[in-house]
Amino acid sequence: DGHSGASITISGEAVAGVKYIEDAAQETTQYLELDFGIAGKTTTDGGLEVGASFDLDLNTNGEAAPDDEEVYISAGGITLTLGDVGAADDAVVGNLSDVGFDGIGVDDVAEAFFDITSQNILVKGEFGAITVAASGSMDEAGVDAVDDFVVAAGYDGGMYSVGISYADVASGDFEVIALGGSVTAAGADLNLFWHQADDGSDTISGYGASVAYPVGALTLVGTVGTTDLDDDDADFGVGAEYDLGGGVSLAGGIGQVDDPFADDDGITVADFGMKIKF
Amino acid sequence: DGHSGASITISGEAVAGVKYIEDAAQETTQYLELDFGIAGKTTTDGGLEVGASFDLDLNTNGEAAPDDEEVYISAGGITLTLGDVGAADDAVVGNLSDVGFDGIGVDDVAEAFFDITSQNILVKGEFGAITVAASGSMDEAGVDAVDDFVVAAGYDGGMYSVGISYADVASGDFEVIALGGSVTAAGADLNLFWHQADDGSDTISGYGASVAYPVGALTLVGTVGTTDLDDDDADFGVGAEYDLGGGVSLAGGIGQVDDPFADDDGITVADFGMKIKF
Amino acid sequence: DGHSGASITISGEAVAGVKYIEDAAQETTQYLELDFGIAGKTTTDGGLEVGASFDLDLNTNGEAAPDDEEVYISAGGITLTLGDVGAADDAVVGNLSDVGFDGIGVDDVAEAFFDITSQNILVKGEFGAITVAASGSMDEAGVDAVDDFVVAAGYDGGMYSVGISYADVASGDFEVIALGGSVTAAGADLNLFWHQADDGSDTISGYGASVAYPVGALTLVGTVGTTDLDDDDADFGVGAEYDLGGGVSLAGGIGQVDDPFADDDGITVADFGMKIKF
Repeated sequence: DGHSGASITISGEAVAGVKYIEDAAQETTQYLELDFGIAGKTTTDGGLEVGASFDLDLNTNGEAAPDDEEVYISAGGITLTLGDVGAADDAVVGNLSDVGFDGIGVDDVAEAFFDITSQNILVKGEFGAITVAASGSMDEAGVDAVDDFVVAAGYDGGMYSVGISYADVASGDFEVIALGGSVTAAGADLNLFWHQADDGSDTISGYGASVAYPVGALTLVGTVGTTDLDDDDADFGVGAEYDLGGGVSLAGGIGQVDDPFADDDGITVADFGMKIKF
Repeated sequence: DGHSGASITISGEAVAGVKYIEDAAQETTQYLELDFGIAGKTTTDGGLEVGASFDLDLNTNGEAAPDDEEVYISAGGITLTLGDVGAADDAVVGNLSDVGFDGIGVDDVAEAFFDITSQNILVKGEFGAITVAASGSMDEAGVDAVDDFVVAAGYDGGMYSVGISYADVASGDFEVIALGGSVTAAGADLNLFWHQADDGSDTISGYGASVAYPVGALTLVGTVGTTDLDDDDADFGVGAEYDLGGGVSLAGGIGQVDDPFADDDGITVADFGMKIKF
Repeated sequence: DGHSGASITISGEAVAGVKYIEDAAQETTQYLELDFGIAGKTTTDGGLEVGASFDLDLNTNGEAAPDDEEVYISAGGITLTLGDVGAADDAVVGNLSDVGFDGIGVDDVAEAFFDITSQNILVKGEFGAITVAASGSMDEAGVDAVDDFVVAAGYDGGMYSVGISYADVASGDFEVIALGGSVTAAGADLNLFWHQADDGSDTISGYGASVAYPVGALTLVGTVGTTDLDDDDADFGVGAEYDLGGGVSLAGGIGQVDDPFADDDGITVADFGMKIKF
């Protein structure tokens, strides 16, 4: 209605391919996922940026619904977001890359307590190389807020970055500290991640590393992750991604994952497919 | 397909803020609502305007679905709409404004029988200052139509407007007459509303007034409404809305609402938040 | 993100009108259907066309969901589609046209075994006048694939076209052969269709013809179809469609359909309404 700064845009991504999970009821399966988003954005006379967005996602498994509604206001490097905001650790601390077109899950166990709580208020500040964020929850009609909160801080040094977060998961009576770092060296991008959950009497640590090594349009990737649980063997995977241009790439990965609570039970997982950004 | 006059547009609005309801299970709650719409429009060679639209709405309470599908044809000031059309009283007769960023509900009881029936056919004619409308229902597959119908007429005199409607709510065995008017005077916009439901033996009247007084970018608002039920005290609220430009405004309100069937039970309600148009 | 060839588009169609079904619980009903689609498309540096799409459809009967997700890659006339792809017979072989703004169903029984199975992989090749296609299914997580597959081939001779398909409907223990052809002669477009389902001991054939005869902006249409079941009388209908320009047309039809398994039970069906393309 004549708001010169207002706009609504549609964005979209899709993946399509084949997944293999050893000994699953269906070992080799087709998988599609379409993630489209609709976002409105405007700017007030005073320079405040204001926006709202939601997702229209569909996948083979039947998820199909408008979801993830958010409203944000942003000024001077500080952004306040309300709605389905996730948590501050995920917003700041880098974690492991998975391998494959959709991810075969070799990073899941090593990051099991990362981004584990969900909030409806997120404040994020970006000041030059430094990023800080905090997330918490307030009541919604008919839903009492959990007392969980998360704070996180990060520093981006150009060729390297580091981040740290503290999550008080009151709803689960435990706390999580996470450390993530990345460094570009010798032409490779290396991510390192460690986190520890502590319920006052016991601790569990999960940690790992992932590396991406670009060679022209091809990028070779590798990931390893594990926990300090007695029966947990390391999960690991290797893969490759080939950029076809136009926002399209072919990607695949193969690796081994296992149940962290059982011994000698690793299974082979793999995927191969296409990633598309519109 | 080369239809020079055809277009599809996306529109969007959002509100986000905090609501307070005294003695509710959650007294202070976060509330978000995103109302996006997709509409197609075209014009025939003979000048008939034809369109179809639906909504993609999400809110904190979990509503999230494509809904409110409508198809309309329009020519010479007359528009025929099929689908989720609402009713003719709501299409013509002005009613009370609520206060707050999303509305605290001070107008609800005073308008309880207004726009109370839902039809699937709406005819609306606009002839200069005069607007007339009628709505009714026909069967849908598997759903017998209710016999309800609504007729309404309005006159817009520039600095004032008036509207009247008659609803035969056969599905509830009662009739509703509503009168609404607005007038701009001394820099303020004043809305007046009265309606009465009659089931042949008893009548209930609901009525009220709302005022909006703009002072630069700030608009002060106030609303009062009640019924003639013995135990119903007046609901009332005051609020303010501040236009930040770019389609964004801050708005808040505070007031008192009560159960019309119980004595001395008023509770305080309030909200504060942001309204955005993209 | 700077993909010069990438785009996302919204398309839309709608129908709205009135349907009549003799002796139905509701004989005359309102019917609306809005079929909007969101599609992303891009082209790789090597000239591969890649896209993803889904539908946002709503109708009077309450269907309202994002659905029909597909991802395709295409090059050199060959397109591979994954997702809700339908089947190869429907992708290649022409069948009967129905009459009316939304279709009164006079072609349904004659085509009962056509496009009867649903696959998640479709390969289609278009080489000049020749089109070939095959569809089959692979497992999805939690869903075993059916063993059904369909192959089809078609030839487009300009003033005429023919197509043939073979469907092995293993999930139903029968096979279907279908033949479809169309010819333009004396100003009319004539479609002919025949198919036969065979379960090894019995066969059922369904067949019919439809004709469209354009006279300026008006097109007269007629359809007849039946099976070789003893108690099945022919279903037939006549109709007209009038092009109003701008992507809008008025269309209506009237005809008779009957239960193929019962004698002398034909009922009258009709519809009239508007078709809109945005």
